[in-house]
Amino acid sequence: MEKVAFLGLGIMGYNVSANLLKAGYPLTVYNRTPERAAGLVNAGAQRARTPREAVADADVIMIMLSDDKAIEGVVFGPDGVLEGVRAGQVAIDLTTCMPKTSLREAAAFNSKGVEFLDAPVFGSKGESRDAGLWIVSGGKREIFDRMLPLFKVISATQHYMGENGKGTSMKLCGNLVVASQLEALGEAMTLATKAGLNAEDVLGVLHVTDFKSPIFDGVGDALARRDFSPSFYLKLMLKDANLISSFAQELNVPLPASAATREVIKTAVNRGWGDENASAMIKVIEQMAGVEVKY
Amino acid sequence: MEKVAFLGLGIMGYNVSANLLKAGYPLTVYNRTPERAAGLVNAGAQRARTPREAVADADVIMIMLSDDKAIEGVVFGPDGVLEGVRAGQVAIDLTTCMPKTSLREAAAFNSKGVEFLDAPVFGSKGESRDAGLWIVSGGKREIFDRMLPLFKVISATQHYMGENGKGTSMKLCGNLVVASQLEALGEAMTLATKAGLNAEDVLGVLHVTDFKSPIFDGVGDALARRDFSPSFYLKLMLKDANLISSFAQELNVPLPASAATREVIKTAVNRGWGDENASAMIKVIEQMAGVEVKY
Amino acid sequence: MEKVAFLGLGIMGYNVSANLLKAGYPLTVYNRTPERAAGLVNAGAQRARTPREAVADADVIMIMLSDDKAIEGVVFGPDGVLEGVRAGQVAIDLTTCMPKTSLREAAAFNSKGVEFLDAPVFGSKGESRDAGLWIVSGGKREIFDRMLPLFKVISATQHYMGENGKGTSMKLCGNLVVASQLEALGEAMTLATKAGLNAEDVLGVLHVTDFKSPIFDGVGDALARRDFSPSFYLKLMLKDANLISSFAQELNVPLPASAATREVIKTAVNRGWGDENASAMIKVIEQMAGVEVKY
Amino acid sequence: MEKVAFLGLGIMGYNVSANLLKAGYPLTVYNRTPERAAGLVNAGAQRARTPREAVADADVIMIMLSDDKAIEGVVFGPDGVLEGVRAGQVAIDLTTCMPKTSLREAAAFNSKGVEFLDAPVFGSKGESRDAGLWIVSGGKREIFDRMLPLFKVISATQHYMGENGKGTSMKLCGNLVVASQLEALGEAMTLATKAGLNAEDVLGVLHVTDFKSPIFDGVGDALARRDFSPSFYLKLMLKDANLISSFAQELNVPLPASAATREVIKTAVNRGWGDENASAMIKVIEQMAGVEVKY
Repeated sequence: MEKVAFLGLGIMGYNVSANLLKAGYPLTVYNRTPERAAGLVNAGAQRARTPREAVADADVIMIMLSDDKAIEGVVFGPDGVLEGVRAGQVAIDLTTCMPKTSLREAAAFNSKGVEFLDAPVFGSKGESRDAGLWIVSGGKREIFDRMLPLFKVISATQHYMGENGKGTSMKLCGNLVVASQLEALGEAMTLATKAGLNAEDVLGVLHVTDFKSPIFDGVGDALARRDFSPSFYLKLMLKDANLISSFAQELNVPLPASAATREVIKTAVNRGWGDENASAMIKVIEQMAGVEVKY
Repeated sequence: MEKVAFLGLGIMGYNVSANLLKAGYPLTVYNRTPERAAGLVNAGAQRARTPREAVADADVIMIMLSDDKAIEGVVFGPDGVLEGVRAGQVAIDLTTCMPKTSLREAAAFNSKGVEFLDAPVFGSKGESRDAGLWIVSGGKREIFDRMLPLFKVISATQHYMGENGKGTSMKLCGNLVVASQLEALGEAMTLATKAGLNAEDVLGVLHVTDFKSPIFDGVGDALARRDFSPSFYLKLMLKDANLISSFAQELNVPLPASAATREVIKTAVNRGWGDENASAMIKVIEQMAGVEVKY
Repeated sequence: MEKVAFLGLGIMGYNVSANLLKAGYPLTVYNRTPERAAGLVNAGAQRARTPREAVADADVIMIMLSDDKAIEGVVFGPDGVLEGVRAGQVAIDLTTCMPKTSLREAAAFNSKGVEFLDAPVFGSKGESRDAGLWIVSGGKREIFDRMLPLFKVISATQHYMGENGKGTSMKLCGNLVVASQLEALGEAMTLATKAGLNAEDVLGVLHVTDFKSPIFDGVGDALARRDFSPSFYLKLMLKDANLISSFAQELNVPLPASAATREVIKTAVNRGWGDENASAMIKVIEQMAGVEVKY
Repeated sequence: MEKVAFLGLGIMGYNVSANLLKAGYPLTVYNRTPERAAGLVNAGAQRARTPREAVADADVIMIMLSDDKAIEGVVFGPDGVLEGVRAGQVAIDLTTCMPKTSLREAAAFNSKGVEFLDAPVFGSKGESRDAGLWIVSGGKREIFDRMLPLFKVISATQHYMGENGKGTSMKLCGNLVVASQLEALGEAMTLATKAGLNAEDVLGVLHVTDFKSPIFDGVGDALARRDFSPSFYLKLMLKDANLISSFAQELNVPLPASAATREVIKTAVNRGWGDENASAMIKVIEQMAGVEVKY
């Protein structure tokens, strides 16, 4: 089995690492705050002190960070991944970032003889724990195929989207849909509430019609309990909304509803809800409507 | 079995009538353009010349029209339903209309001793044909319960939402979600296309993730074939978007993204696509983005 | 001089009436709450108990109400204006209302041999007091010309816009610009404040450049003092935003930015600021931005 | 008189340079395409082959480029301004750019003993020619004061906004208002046109009311002639709209209407109108409304 170096042990990264370890992959991990690695080390992982050190001995390098800036530090920075790589390795970045950052990584890795896949994932805490993520990847087809067994250990489906940057492009398009669905849920539930409908009754309808979505089930049920504990941080959804805006700016694509939605998400973070679940953005619409919600 | 009068034989009304007939309900039908009734008459239905005549002998009156204005004519107008009713009947309006129109109907019917349910349906051509509609109804609980056997002949699920007007309120909240889904699909597909992604690959991802929705499957596949033949007319989606806007105005509920979406739908109708499928609104976003789409 | 009946003594109507009286026009006034008329009666006006009574003896009938619903009552209702008119009179409605309401009034008045002008006004408290309003009017050109001397007593400029309904159409188009200016001021001031700019410095720039506007001067200075005392009620601005939305719906005109602005105005009223000045809508943007403003 | 180096001879830069020359300032100019300098050289200016060479002998360095990327090349690039400066000079950047770019310039210049002002200007072709620009500047107050005589040669008013970056911050806030006014004009004129109003009549009203603006006069008159010849390129307005979006993202300020407006501007550029005047964005709204405009 390939030796894997894993960089970035956030909520998602930790769970993905644990699944690789459980499947028997020899694993070296790196995280900026090293204490996060404790559980994995107990379960048999090695801990490296720098990204450079982490990747030295690996066959496959997996990176899963919070944003482009973190990639800048961990991959391109001093003692970073690029200082430790050698020809023949495969690097995979699972981070949701700008497609142009994926392209920059691809060029940097390739110049050192390292293959590169951008391979961000859909899903959040639960899916990362249950190996139920959905992977969308860009790079060479044969590298994608070669990595499939490893991908299958951490994900439910694996989608090859084309050359480098196409995985992250797909990720941003998908996140646009996620944000739209949360906004739609918030608008519909707020309108329904002010119309005197019962929230559970409304969710009951949303669960069965042809505009249903698993997101409505999960978020809707939590909403009915007024539970905003994070499985996907609102502040990361703002990050994604900003990435989508930047990507659409590069391609000069007008996104009328998503533009409106981004302003709602900004407001939610200004309200101080960045560390709650992304669904907390719905509270902005409730407040705009002057609705005192207690389902 | 109750004798049913059915008023309004549009795409949906025709299919619902046919299912009632097939289930053995004695049926009298009325449509402004009487030729629409031919198939039903051949299958055993009676044809009435006026709404008044249609309802005279019925136990249950079902109304399924295009909009509030049509209700004005068929229900409240000369030779209309209200002129023909008698105490003890049950009237059910399946039309998507303003909740205040439902309330006005309820008051008018009740004043003549007729029970009333507003009971609009989700679903379009296919679901009406296959008795797969989703009914959301407002009125007295016991009347709803009494009508359940009849509802089950034409629908997959039946949702009691509360007093009169709550069915149509729910319908508008649901349609808000439908319009949001189409807008999100259009924005995501356009961004993806301009980013060089393959449409079928993108749809493949949308089919499996936790933001999937049956609407993306049906509309997405048709979109990939550039098929905009109507199962739900774009012009009716504009009507609904306008109803949602009016309803939100009455309740003073801000709907930032839905407001942006309505302007896209208006544009689509101005482009001349009102008689195409609702999904034709996506072409507006493609045109705004300057994308020449040929999947 | 023509005998004038004046119906509606709100902030604006009172001031306009006072100017007519000062200019020597014999004046009969009507207001739903008759105490509002006290000052005018002291200055020589007659007070009528009903609209019908008010107009009986007039040459010119002037109507200035809050909205379409008030027109419904005062003009079309029992003991309303239409019951008191006689052929040869001229009726002028200064209310901001739907153009289709103007058309309905025109038809009703004309059927009684009464000429009709829709003649809403731009300007608020100060301009109505100082005879500085801007009148935009629809109807027959010769009637407009005949009324010019009277118009000049209450306004700075008088604009003939075409047939009936064109005055109110122009009014709604102008109010669209007013709302846009307030929204732009709010967005610019909020962005500036969060960027650490000094509000008075920013207003100093807005006072001189080619995008300056008298509205920025008046509202801006009040904003710098955090003075939201009403010269034009926010709740009336919401009424107007809703009229614009309805008018744009009738004509199927997409208004992307105005649609976004309407949702801000709705929010402001939900915050409880309906009786403050229209500029209070700016506080919504400040709150969305999480800005604690104390200039 | 100070020796001035001027870098960037676009429409605006050329006119500003010509005014400095006319006022007697010894002038050295640089432009990427050197032919642009011909008229100035004939009138007595020196032409430099590189930014570095241009600034070597100057007391004051003025920079006026199209965007942040051009600053990157001309100021920070090889043979750029920073390679030629010496302690004691004053550098002034008139470019509309990100405030953080101003801060980066300030730091770079200061580290070489060069004082720096960010000093972008409002106004377009006409104002630059007629020395009627409005300057908004950030930096040390005493440097601003020292530069006032020079500023007065090229501008109508000069506004000190605070420390470095505050000039460019003010510029973006002002451009937000400009874009809002063009959008408002476009929406109002389109609604008016579809309502059957005469464009010149509408513009006549916009010229006198308290929501008038010089921009409505200039743009409105050109619009009535369907004249979209550039005095401020639409493509630069898109650049500015994108800067505003990025700046608001940095500060996390929601801008609901400006966000909607940006999507309209994007669409206008996708239509191929980037080299027309900014007011060409109004044609997008006309097309969305299905209005065939021929005033």
